[in-house]
Amino acid sequence: MSFKDKIRIIEDFPKEGISFKDVTPVFQDREALKELIDTFKELARDKEVDVVVGPEARGFLIGAPLAYALGVGFVPVRKPGKLPGDTLRYEYALEYGTDTLEIHKDAIKKGQKVLIVDDLLATGGTISSVAKLVEELGGEVVSMNFVIELTGLKGIEKLDKYEVVSLLKYEF
Amino acid sequence: MSFKDKIRIIEDFPKEGISFKDVTPVFQDREALKELIDTFKELARDKEVDVVVGPEARGFLIGAPLAYALGVGFVPVRKPGKLPGDTLRYEYALEYGTDTLEIHKDAIKKGQKVLIVDDLLATGGTISSVAKLVEELGGEVVSMNFVIELTGLKGIEKLDKYEVVSLLKYEF
Repeated sequence: MSFKDKIRIIEDFPKEGISFKDVTPVFQDREALKELIDTFKELARDKEVDVVVGPEARGFLIGAPLAYALGVGFVPVRKPGKLPGDTLRYEYALEYGTDTLEIHKDAIKKGQKVLIVDDLLATGGTISSVAKLVEELGGEVVSMNFVIELTGLKGIEKLDKYEVVSLLKYEF
Repeated sequence: MSFKDKIRIIEDFPKEGISFKDVTPVFQDREALKELIDTFKELARDKEVDVVVGPEARGFLIGAPLAYALGVGFVPVRKPGKLPGDTLRYEYALEYGTDTLEIHKDAIKKGQKVLIVDDLLATGGTISSVAKLVEELGGEVVSMNFVIELTGLKGIEKLDKYEVVSLLKYEF
């Protein structure tokens, strides 16, 4: 069974009208997890990735095993106050209000080739903020990879200067 | 350089008097990450682990690559409201107030051998709650593995029915 058959759709989560794509069944299945990570590993071949970066918390589930599989490091991007070292912050607009992400300033070295991963590409707000943090530190974003893209939310339009690869697409 | 030399001590984080052990430099270094995960993989040899379980968010950083390395699945334990499926909850006491953790009810099958991992063993409150969730679902906890144990907090006393292995020990 492919990891694609393990995505679980949960209606009205976290609120009414949202059709939530749950990737946790992929991770809890030994074959699906291996197939998913090996698929991303194959996509990264020839890109000479130096480091994988992913936002908390589901980005860790993909990014950490992928970094291990590629033999490179993994850098977490987190909500404010979670990273103990000296951080760079980026605040971005949401539909109502703002959100903030942080990265350790010493986590990326100038010129490093960075692969950004997350489970889901929705509006693209989170992932374009992750890219801004990486670039501010001198990293070069060589690709952005997602398990799922919600094409109806047009997140891809915010990311037009990047290579974006999503393994599965849903409209919403 | 060993992963042990990559642990960074940050004083007065998250509050005054706490000497925080930061494991993120281990993950961002390709050799240290590989050495850390391979060390845990070697510890799990002959245990016939069916699934690795880790609490959010740093438990994901260790558990997901370890599960991939072992060729088994990974099950996340999360704060309330984060897991979209049908969950089992466990509320536990903190110094002031309580905290709650959740696991998907279908994440562990009866009789599965479970390895629980996290970055840090402090008072043991989180990890004994994770174990209770696993056992409630019929899983058998075969070992609990940590990068760091703060021996002065005596978390090990809460875990005396389990095998506990910590790669590094600090008093506080």
